[in-house]
Amino acid sequence: MTEETNIYKIEDVLHDGIGYVELIDAMGSDLDIVNAAKVSYNKEATTFGPAEEKLLWYLWFHKHTSPFEQVELKWRIKAPAVVWWQFVRHRMAEYNATSGRYTPYKDEYYTPPTWRGQDKHNKQASSDVIIQLSPELEAQIEELMLQSEQVYQDSMKEGVSRELARLNRLAWRDYHTFIVKMNAHAFMNFLTKRDHKDAQWEIQQYAKAMKNSVLTIIPATLTCFDTYRKEAVKFEEQLNLIYKERFKDVGKSSS
Amino acid sequence: MTEETNIYKIEDVLHDGIGYVELIDAMGSDLDIVNAAKVSYNKEATTFGPAEEKLLWYLWFHKHTSPFEQVELKWRIKAPAVVWWQFVRHRMAEYNATSGRYTPYKDEYYTPPTWRGQDKHNKQASSDVIIQLSPELEAQIEELMLQSEQVYQDSMKEGVSRELARLNRLAWRDYHTFIVKMNAHAFMNFLTKRDHKDAQWEIQQYAKAMKNSVLTIIPATLTCFDTYRKEAVKFEEQLNLIYKERFKDVGKSSS
Amino acid sequence: MTEETNIYKIEDVLHDGIGYVELIDAMGSDLDIVNAAKVSYNKEATTFGPAEEKLLWYLWFHKHTSPFEQVELKWRIKAPAVVWWQFVRHRMAEYNATSGRYTPYKDEYYTPPTWRGQDKHNKQASSDVIIQLSPELEAQIEELMLQSEQVYQDSMKEGVSRELARLNRLAWRDYHTFIVKMNAHAFMNFLTKRDHKDAQWEIQQYAKAMKNSVLTIIPATLTCFDTYRKEAVKFEEQLNLIYKERFKDVGKSSS
Amino acid sequence: MTEETNIYKIEDVLHDGIGYVELIDAMGSDLDIVNAAKVSYNKEATTFGPAEEKLLWYLWFHKHTSPFEQVELKWRIKAPAVVWWQFVRHRMAEYNATSGRYTPYKDEYYTPPTWRGQDKHNKQASSDVIIQLSPELEAQIEELMLQSEQVYQDSMKEGVSRELARLNRLAWRDYHTFIVKMNAHAFMNFLTKRDHKDAQWEIQQYAKAMKNSVLTIIPATLTCFDTYRKEAVKFEEQLNLIYKERFKDVGKSSS
Repeated sequence: MTEETNIYKIEDVLHDGIGYVELIDAMGSDLDIVNAAKVSYNKEATTFGPAEEKLLWYLWFHKHTSPFEQVELKWRIKAPAVVWWQFVRHRMAEYNATSGRYTPYKDEYYTPPTWRGQDKHNKQASSDVIIQLSPELEAQIEELMLQSEQVYQDSMKEGVSRELARLNRLAWRDYHTFIVKMNAHAFMNFLTKRDHKDAQWEIQQYAKAMKNSVLTIIPATLTCFDTYRKEAVKFEEQLNLIYKERFKDVGKSSS
Repeated sequence: MTEETNIYKIEDVLHDGIGYVELIDAMGSDLDIVNAAKVSYNKEATTFGPAEEKLLWYLWFHKHTSPFEQVELKWRIKAPAVVWWQFVRHRMAEYNATSGRYTPYKDEYYTPPTWRGQDKHNKQASSDVIIQLSPELEAQIEELMLQSEQVYQDSMKEGVSRELARLNRLAWRDYHTFIVKMNAHAFMNFLTKRDHKDAQWEIQQYAKAMKNSVLTIIPATLTCFDTYRKEAVKFEEQLNLIYKERFKDVGKSSS
Repeated sequence: MTEETNIYKIEDVLHDGIGYVELIDAMGSDLDIVNAAKVSYNKEATTFGPAEEKLLWYLWFHKHTSPFEQVELKWRIKAPAVVWWQFVRHRMAEYNATSGRYTPYKDEYYTPPTWRGQDKHNKQASSDVIIQLSPELEAQIEELMLQSEQVYQDSMKEGVSRELARLNRLAWRDYHTFIVKMNAHAFMNFLTKRDHKDAQWEIQQYAKAMKNSVLTIIPATLTCFDTYRKEAVKFEEQLNLIYKERFKDVGKSSS
Repeated sequence: MTEETNIYKIEDVLHDGIGYVELIDAMGSDLDIVNAAKVSYNKEATTFGPAEEKLLWYLWFHKHTSPFEQVELKWRIKAPAVVWWQFVRHRMAEYNATSGRYTPYKDEYYTPPTWRGQDKHNKQASSDVIIQLSPELEAQIEELMLQSEQVYQDSMKEGVSRELARLNRLAWRDYHTFIVKMNAHAFMNFLTKRDHKDAQWEIQQYAKAMKNSVLTIIPATLTCFDTYRKEAVKFEEQLNLIYKERFKDVGKSSS
């Protein structure tokens, strides 16, 4: 990819002017996915027409996922650690990231556009409610940000190693730059989990940006994926009914 | 596992008196799966009761699959190469197998209990129709088995290496012994693909035997899995309708 | 494992009275490794004697690593995030961890036993020099710890979700509990990287504790591994000489 | 890759005019490997000069392997099953292959250029000795090839499914076409095992052809790898001495 790459760069992912998602390389296309499948009967298509789209949908709808592993997507991403923390749980990917042992952190903390409230039902999620922090707390947070940066700089001035000086940073907020590569199958698994209402808002934004950055690379695959997801959500609701009915008389495991 | 292990051994998987599936080790249980999940909120259950079963179903029905990776299952299996060929496509597993470079093959060919006919609709499957071979063909096959064994032995007698002598065997029919280890998540993916009507009959029998061998190790997990699969099959049918409707005017990709 | 498990628990890994490493399950032994290899020629040993030890060394010294994947080790670990951060880069492992989205953090920050100085040569490491912090900085750090805890609690009191409230914690210092499972091959790769002088001191302590916890599980494997590592270090020094000689006239890549 | 791709195609890998190795796609270069590493200190090089080569060697010589995972290589390969059988043991790769359930086998058996003798020392290898088969055995093998093809065709004519009809083929000799994708790290592991004197001659030829096909894609990486391998072989010999000395009084495990 050359200058046109710019169209694949999504800036300011979290509305604080810092983070970005940039597609830096891609190998393969919808056609390559189809041709990976067609090797099983020794055929090869040269253009991606309706018949190829039909085969692509057949593959994904019937969980023949291996051809989707033949496409690779690579991004350079700048994101706060709270996003990276969730990223690395996806092990079907290759990562290289800024090392805070090697490189001093910049004075660049992520601040969420709003302080989202705790969800009352989903114990691990935030709600749509926006919390207006008290002026005292706002001030304390400002102070904390300044103080942690100060302590970090002072520690290094006194000779403390970078790997320890960082212990006094508000680390979730620190931006890291990383290169991440995934195949299209792994990427759709990633989207299923992270472009999902239950995921933390911050990683949802990155998942959406990554998806937008590859819309022209694997358009048919993503259309197929979207249609599949819409049906899968209905299926999940159906599963949830079965689950609730079966365990309607059972409390939570609490021991 | 000690002497009781015998109850985990399923003999004669393919009705020719040769193959077997033997569970030789297992780590973890339904309770360990639940406790792997509970670490996310710093709890631990000591017994597996209804509340724990409820949590286990919640995990699987909502695709929180990582706790299922905390259980490991290990088998010693004897199967013809046609089954091994399909086994190794599952990369989330650890394998060690008899090497035909190292060890001469025994005079032990798999013969299917019946010669299944070609499916008219599913190009890659066999049908329920049993083909009664002509006596001439039957005789030719018998002769071929004897001749290939003879050529194999003669080649080695003339000094040919085992790794080349085997080229003249009816290799799909040769039995191999292997140790395979999978975690419970990978095993359920394996069952989804191989304990499935579209899989070759031979590997279906192995998948079923493996499942039977662990019924007492992870009983709640397998009950949950079975219920899920029943629903998933309905979902797959629904997907198939959508697929057919969408592409009703499109022919097969044939180039 | 039953009550004896306690002997596999190493407390206070980082000298602050909080972290621990506890082996909670293990599947397989030195003998199982050898028997995984022996399946390649259809043999099976019943006891682990000198001949089996010889084979085990042969396997590792000749990089026949697949039999070592047939042993699984599982720990429950409590460690600060700075250690977890490095742990998860090892993708050949299964993880479940406390979720800060779900569970509030305890008032429990890791403080290093000494503030290690920056290494002058290795840009990404700390040195043996102990930095005596100025009293002012000491006091600022104390204050920062108290303030960040206060802001965290106040944020949640004002209704902020746990997933956002944590942004103001000194996150590297927060302890997390996690279950991690690795096979013996992956574990030795982990030790090679993390029980290594270039690794951060904190994860070195965890690597050493994990190793100590399995000394009686795979004793011959670890003796073999230690001997191998001693030789590998000499090899690495030899490689380093070749590297330096070859590039003696080339500066660092700096662009 | 466009028309120039032809230069990446190696024909007739096994001297029987049938098999080939064709590089069909590649993502990344020596420069991308270096830049994946440089992200750890927020730098980026624009050209690959001596300083970048130095860094690349540093990475590989010090086993910082993750940057090498950022390059992907994809081939279309036609090889006999005996080669595929060994290929699929490499699980850090993505595969799609001709299915004998779906597609009838062509009348195309691999015949080795010479019948290599059994190695007297290495139980799993062939030697340099060429075995001149007796005319009787030569004739029997010819006959066996014809007969197995005949039985295969007749079985299908009588209605037997392809998945079963193939049981009577000399399956090791059947050519399969497959697409395989590996990252550069996995590929060098593959070369270490398969472009190695202990590997079966047939897969050695494929490994060498694959390496030749990417010489212009990652030239510095492969030069570095070759130098490393030369030293590693010496190290392996040193290890072997230690091994032999330690176990000089111990027989083979034979139970």
